[in-house]
Amino acid sequence: MVVEMEVNNGENTTNNWVPIMKKLHMNVIGEKMKKFPKLTCRTIWRVGKEDPRRVIHSLKVGISLTLVSLLYLMDPLFKGFGSNAIWAVMTVVVVLEFTAGATLCKGLNRGLGTLLAGSLAFLIEYVATKTGHVFRAIFIGAALFFIGATATYMRFIPYIKKNYDYGVVIFLLTFNLITVSSYRVDNVLKIAHERFYTIAIGCGICLLMCLLIFPNWSGEDLHNFTAAKFEGLAKSIEACVNEYFSDDEQQKAKENSSDLEDPIYNGYKTVLDSKSFDETSALYASWEPRHSRHCYRFPWQQYVKLGNVLRHFGYTIVALHGCLQTEIQTPRSVRAMFKDPCIRLSGEVAKALKELGDSIRNRRHCSPEILSDHLHEALQDLNKAIKSQPKLFIGSKNNTNKLTLATVISKGQSCALNSRRVSLSSVKTDTSALLDWKSKLRGGSSTTHENLKLRPTLSKIAITSLEFSEALPFAAFASLLVEIVARLDLVIEEVEELGRIAHFEEYNDDEHVVEIDRKNSRPLPNQLPTQDSGD
Amino acid sequence: MVVEMEVNNGENTTNNWVPIMKKLHMNVIGEKMKKFPKLTCRTIWRVGKEDPRRVIHSLKVGISLTLVSLLYLMDPLFKGFGSNAIWAVMTVVVVLEFTAGATLCKGLNRGLGTLLAGSLAFLIEYVATKTGHVFRAIFIGAALFFIGATATYMRFIPYIKKNYDYGVVIFLLTFNLITVSSYRVDNVLKIAHERFYTIAIGCGICLLMCLLIFPNWSGEDLHNFTAAKFEGLAKSIEACVNEYFSDDEQQKAKENSSDLEDPIYNGYKTVLDSKSFDETSALYASWEPRHSRHCYRFPWQQYVKLGNVLRHFGYTIVALHGCLQTEIQTPRSVRAMFKDPCIRLSGEVAKALKELGDSIRNRRHCSPEILSDHLHEALQDLNKAIKSQPKLFIGSKNNTNKLTLATVISKGQSCALNSRRVSLSSVKTDTSALLDWKSKLRGGSSTTHENLKLRPTLSKIAITSLEFSEALPFAAFASLLVEIVARLDLVIEEVEELGRIAHFEEYNDDEHVVEIDRKNSRPLPNQLPTQDSGD
Repeated sequence: MVVEMEVNNGENTTNNWVPIMKKLHMNVIGEKMKKFPKLTCRTIWRVGKEDPRRVIHSLKVGISLTLVSLLYLMDPLFKGFGSNAIWAVMTVVVVLEFTAGATLCKGLNRGLGTLLAGSLAFLIEYVATKTGHVFRAIFIGAALFFIGATATYMRFIPYIKKNYDYGVVIFLLTFNLITVSSYRVDNVLKIAHERFYTIAIGCGICLLMCLLIFPNWSGEDLHNFTAAKFEGLAKSIEACVNEYFSDDEQQKAKENSSDLEDPIYNGYKTVLDSKSFDETSALYASWEPRHSRHCYRFPWQQYVKLGNVLRHFGYTIVALHGCLQTEIQTPRSVRAMFKDPCIRLSGEVAKALKELGDSIRNRRHCSPEILSDHLHEALQDLNKAIKSQPKLFIGSKNNTNKLTLATVISKGQSCALNSRRVSLSSVKTDTSALLDWKSKLRGGSSTTHENLKLRPTLSKIAITSLEFSEALPFAAFASLLVEIVARLDLVIEEVEELGRIAHFEEYNDDEHVVEIDRKNSRPLPNQLPTQDSGD
Repeated sequence: MVVEMEVNNGENTTNNWVPIMKKLHMNVIGEKMKKFPKLTCRTIWRVGKEDPRRVIHSLKVGISLTLVSLLYLMDPLFKGFGSNAIWAVMTVVVVLEFTAGATLCKGLNRGLGTLLAGSLAFLIEYVATKTGHVFRAIFIGAALFFIGATATYMRFIPYIKKNYDYGVVIFLLTFNLITVSSYRVDNVLKIAHERFYTIAIGCGICLLMCLLIFPNWSGEDLHNFTAAKFEGLAKSIEACVNEYFSDDEQQKAKENSSDLEDPIYNGYKTVLDSKSFDETSALYASWEPRHSRHCYRFPWQQYVKLGNVLRHFGYTIVALHGCLQTEIQTPRSVRAMFKDPCIRLSGEVAKALKELGDSIRNRRHCSPEILSDHLHEALQDLNKAIKSQPKLFIGSKNNTNKLTLATVISKGQSCALNSRRVSLSSVKTDTSALLDWKSKLRGGSSTTHENLKLRPTLSKIAITSLEFSEALPFAAFASLLVEIVARLDLVIEEVEELGRIAHFEEYNDDEHVVEIDRKNSRPLPNQLPTQDSGD
């Protein structure tokens, strides 16, 4: 790359750019092509390793297709169904989904759509047969237009879009097929019958495959995902607080690197992005039969509600994470004073979250000591630590006098030199920064573009040059931490509600005893769900 | 309801519950049935009123279906295509989507899938014809299994799932149809040809309808949605800060009511939930032709990036909103001291956000004075206001002595009595609350359920009983407000990047001149995109 650019470093550089770019482009493509097979193999391997059920599902689809094609391939069966057997193959391809709930939802939608469309088509056929040939064509055309437009419009209604979108498409498809065919074919009834039977066979094979052979339940996925979310949040909080108090400069470099490998970000990311997965899984789960031992209705609505509460809990963690990346930072020496109580508090919150996650995973009520004394002691300690440093929260009294701040900082061992931003603010007083900023802004409209590029940095200077009490960001951090403890209550409430509705096991101190007793345990008769799940 | 319950208030109440519940249930259903037609009509009307393009799209689908059915209904056309004309009808039903991008994506996927499947099926047909009848059936079955399992597994690969999921389904469908049919029918080539032609005709009608007649562009939707997000965020911030400083008790009641009508919540909700819409729209927009006047590539990736930054901006607003709902509140009297600078700052931020939204909506660069002097002045004022109240951030020095706090509060006119929570904390000292909490917790394992219900409230008491400096929550509020200003920079950066990539108009002070000049204006040649949009 560099060589090529140097060779062409003579005149006419702009014209030479194009072939160079092309060459570079070709090189890049060439390299990509070389890497492609290796990358593909790795991706294919990883997809299977992440979730081995995917491999099983693929094999299930293969087996179902082979089974259903027997209808066409084996002579005795072909005589029964004829060429319409092809519809069974189509049904299997379209309906067999990864989880039982999704398959049921699609299969029943397909069945319902076909039935409704068939009935309506026959009604229209009944009216149309009484008219002449040309009129009949016009009548069919008008019916297609009217039903097509109505059905499409129906798909925009939120309730139908959510539950029956696929059903409406199939309704439209079948209706059109039957109505149009009826113009040329006489025995439409036979076609419709055969189509219905073969679709039923296809759906039957799909249901057999998805319900009886290594079934994947959407409800189960949602359940495990919910439990995993708690662990992610717990890790996130712990990592966030640890990083805030770490005096390692490496940590700072890590902050600036991409968010992708950040353990804090990874912890809450899944929670923040969980909305659509939660809702889709809950929708499919609502179609699933009561597959658990106790045959309770799967409380999918409560899982969605818990997901919402967890997302809101996650937003507070994002704000806490924001304290690590903000422009105005409390010096590390000041932070160090509050290190122990904060880390202890975050540890207790993380412990509570992990306990909640475990309780959901094991389908038992959470420990009554989940809001442990330790949590409250940690809160008290933080309280005491903050009160023991009253001077911290006083800013410098005027712009020139930095003594108060300086004394506070010198109290800790290392000083403001550690913090790039603090030194910046001491070099540029706010007035000079603002003046600089204004003069650069007024530089002229011809160089607007450069100004636009410069501005963000300038505004950062303007913010850092403000002499907010430097303990203010720490106050925000501490306040958010306390807020997290307060929000933990809401989460616990929802988890308990879930426990009640889903008839979780009672909490037992000795986990192993619970494991053994689980098979015989029944819920107490007075433990009726306090809230009906929105019948 | 009440009457029935009282009548049955004798013995055996538990058994009588069931019929009562059933009656109530029937009544509820009856009422629902009565309301149903009215509700349905209203919903149907609202769906159309919200977005009149939906009505147009429905009519377009109706017209397309009628057009395509002519292939079957009109004698000369039917002679050309025969009964395979039905595939064209199916294609229209399945492919014609609301936006041009979605239709193109599905249409091209369908075309590509059909072509690939056809080629592969002929290869297999070529091998299979050389074997005997029985062997051929086994060979076909094996091919179905192998290709079915492989294609299904492919759908789990993220890249394929995102871009070609529908194409793989159609590939599998067509492959199975041709391969299975080839066992009984001799001229498979003719079937495949006809199927391909009719699908092409169906796709052609769809493209005609979606590209030429009242086209809806996904890119346009994404563009308008992005601009609307800015307005939502601006409203949210203003409403949030106004509510924080309003001394109206009504506001407090509103806080406790459901989140649904809350203007703050509504403002940022769309932004937080925008992820899946953004990504889907961007995906479809990437398939759309360069429909703008200048024929630039639609910078869909930049819109997704901007959406991510806006979501992160939104999280900070959620945290700010959390300050309104938190357990420990700074007394309103104390807050009032900082009312003006905070409201001014939020007003400036909202103004900047609205300007950004306007600039995107009108496809022009944003005003170079977007980070106005006013914003910096407001920041300075807040800074001064906080520094002028140094005592505020000092908590009481020990548990019994509340004098410092009291003096601070008495400084403002109204006192802690206003705040329910503060009075609570003064009634229960933290030690007594903790003791209470412990004794209730230890009450015995038989009443675990009651304990579980009581706990959250107890933990709230434990938190409020902590004597954190009551200015701490305000410090968090102020810090988050400053954080929002800092994050505004990131947003501005992304908007400018978008402006560069999408070749927005230059900013012009006199908006009307720009409007008139727009037709003749061309981007300057040196304004090449600084970043290639991920070729």
